[in-house]
Amino acid sequence: MTIINLDHLSANQPLPEVQDAMIEALKNNYGNPSSQHTIGDKAAEALGIARESVARLINSPLPKEIVFTSSGTESINHAIKGVALAKAEKGNHIVTSNIEHNAVLRSLRRLKMMDYRVTSVPVDEYGRVNPDDIAKAITDKTILVSIMHSNNEIGTMQPIEEIAKITKEKKIVFHTDAVDSVGVIPVDVQKLGVDLLSFASNTFYGPSGVGGLYVKRGTSIWPLLDGGVQENNKRAGTENLAGIIGMGVAAESAILNMEERISHVKNLRDKLIKMFPDFIDEYFINGHPEYCLPNLLSVSIKYIEGESVVLMLDEEGIAVSTRSACAAGALQASHVLLSIGREFADAQGTMVITFGFENTEVDIYKFLTVLKEAVNTLREISPLYSKT
Amino acid sequence: MTIINLDHLSANQPLPEVQDAMIEALKNNYGNPSSQHTIGDKAAEALGIARESVARLINSPLPKEIVFTSSGTESINHAIKGVALAKAEKGNHIVTSNIEHNAVLRSLRRLKMMDYRVTSVPVDEYGRVNPDDIAKAITDKTILVSIMHSNNEIGTMQPIEEIAKITKEKKIVFHTDAVDSVGVIPVDVQKLGVDLLSFASNTFYGPSGVGGLYVKRGTSIWPLLDGGVQENNKRAGTENLAGIIGMGVAAESAILNMEERISHVKNLRDKLIKMFPDFIDEYFINGHPEYCLPNLLSVSIKYIEGESVVLMLDEEGIAVSTRSACAAGALQASHVLLSIGREFADAQGTMVITFGFENTEVDIYKFLTVLKEAVNTLREISPLYSKT
Repeated sequence: MTIINLDHLSANQPLPEVQDAMIEALKNNYGNPSSQHTIGDKAAEALGIARESVARLINSPLPKEIVFTSSGTESINHAIKGVALAKAEKGNHIVTSNIEHNAVLRSLRRLKMMDYRVTSVPVDEYGRVNPDDIAKAITDKTILVSIMHSNNEIGTMQPIEEIAKITKEKKIVFHTDAVDSVGVIPVDVQKLGVDLLSFASNTFYGPSGVGGLYVKRGTSIWPLLDGGVQENNKRAGTENLAGIIGMGVAAESAILNMEERISHVKNLRDKLIKMFPDFIDEYFINGHPEYCLPNLLSVSIKYIEGESVVLMLDEEGIAVSTRSACAAGALQASHVLLSIGREFADAQGTMVITFGFENTEVDIYKFLTVLKEAVNTLREISPLYSKT
Repeated sequence: MTIINLDHLSANQPLPEVQDAMIEALKNNYGNPSSQHTIGDKAAEALGIARESVARLINSPLPKEIVFTSSGTESINHAIKGVALAKAEKGNHIVTSNIEHNAVLRSLRRLKMMDYRVTSVPVDEYGRVNPDDIAKAITDKTILVSIMHSNNEIGTMQPIEEIAKITKEKKIVFHTDAVDSVGVIPVDVQKLGVDLLSFASNTFYGPSGVGGLYVKRGTSIWPLLDGGVQENNKRAGTENLAGIIGMGVAAESAILNMEERISHVKNLRDKLIKMFPDFIDEYFINGHPEYCLPNLLSVSIKYIEGESVVLMLDEEGIAVSTRSACAAGALQASHVLLSIGREFADAQGTMVITFGFENTEVDIYKFLTVLKEAVNTLREISPLYSKT
């Protein structure tokens, strides 16, 4: 059975040219970039080329501002813990929002165990932070603000540039988790004005297990991994060279094809929104109508359980997500959905559909047809649902 | 020019079967093991199989005791910082040795900036720690002992079992950096009696940028990466699945071929030691004559500069290392060589030769022939060398 993948945010197959570059590296460029001989030189050269490609993707003016990591999660941990520890003498207060990814939330929870304090600002019904709330939350002990670029559950994008103006004025380090934005939509670190920006290769059809952290020159941050002087002394450890080479190729492809990809997924998303009421009733679409990722649609369907729908769709060869895969304890409702005001039960009935470039309108039709069947079946056994 | 690789400790080409497994994963198993659909299930299954293979390699009784990481360096940082932070309420003192890898040294230096205290025990002229010194260094504030299994510069192996008896009696967590041992020589975590053991995939012909940390069940340790619940809640972040699959295949091959590989490299090492005086005079062999890695030979040649020899050998297509590639500032002498009593100048004239299964006796002959030429050239211009 050919699987219709409508869960691109969980995993993307690496592009054919990414695969080719990685295979070539495994076969012919397996050296250690730190070695002082020819095998090492070749590896170091490939590492440099990948760094330039990735820098170009986010318009970083200096390739050495890119630190390759093993995941978006590592980048986020590095940014948050690295700044908190480096700036411990200056203060112990961090500002964030209520709808951040678990990598942010749990890094902050860890820091709280080390006597840091955290203020988390609310979001509106569309999941947007109000920059004024950030300004108000900042104290003379604040050392870091961390606000995500786009949300991985509802797709809402934040007013990063406006927040950066505030942090710049108050001379506070600003990190944004852009794991679900970089490579999907234009991200320009200079225009955004951020000091730190986390991203991941698989988001834009690079390999999984490879990430990046943009560290603006002069930003005070400790490494998370101490040891050798790799990554301009910001991240020790022998590099995942094949993976990094793959990320570089994926970055080049994202630069080249971004406009076309955006228009393709946006068209599918619009079609899905338009067709939805013909198949399902009693649902909400989550996230901001304008400031949202073009490839993601979050929908809360009443009187059903999202996890059950995921399994029923899977039976028919369609992959979607509840986006709670990363969260501990499946019975918890999403903190993001509760934060935008969804009821607990509606949050449980939420599905996230994320498109990739290989999806077609036929995929949407098949998805809605199977979804309708699944929802009807589940509602028949739901004690809350009464047919009119 | 075909390169003769005598620097296997810096990088190994992944085995053909490792390459094949990784290519297959890139093409057909690119899912996210946390996803709840078929694509995710397939990924999760492969992850489980790799974990079992790696557990078998180090005789861990429970595959869930294996935490996949992005490098030996990450494993070491995780072990040391993770235990120090988790046990901060119990104490702030750590015991180590003078000849540990930079990942250990610098993790400890980082902890010193956070008010931890470190006692570093000396080694003898062969680089061996005396377990009595460990026992004496332990105080009622000691929370961790970290002693390497084998040294990456001189190959000396430590009396880990004896040290483990001491730490077990005093109920102190014991970590060993076994990055250069696992997959090369038999390593059995149960026999060793350690709580934590770091290792890396590339040491045994797996991909680089993949590592592992053995965490004995019940060991108190914080994650280094917080976020999702991957790796049994010990290491968040989407997995480098292709890399981990490659590491699993490499582990199976290491189990199967270890005896043969040891006998092959040991034979080459013995031959090299025997032939050396026919080509070069005035040198020392570093490390323990009995307790040493079978694939590594460290030699300090008087009146020359190791880095120059590395470059001259490279010109002739032979890769060797000074093993200072990981250290900051090339003008520093190796702390390992100084610790075993080498003079500064002799430390500078040190080369590390590490063998792999593809090396032959012809490689040794070519190496020694070119080395003799290089050493003669360098000594001619050395102000310290006087021909007799």
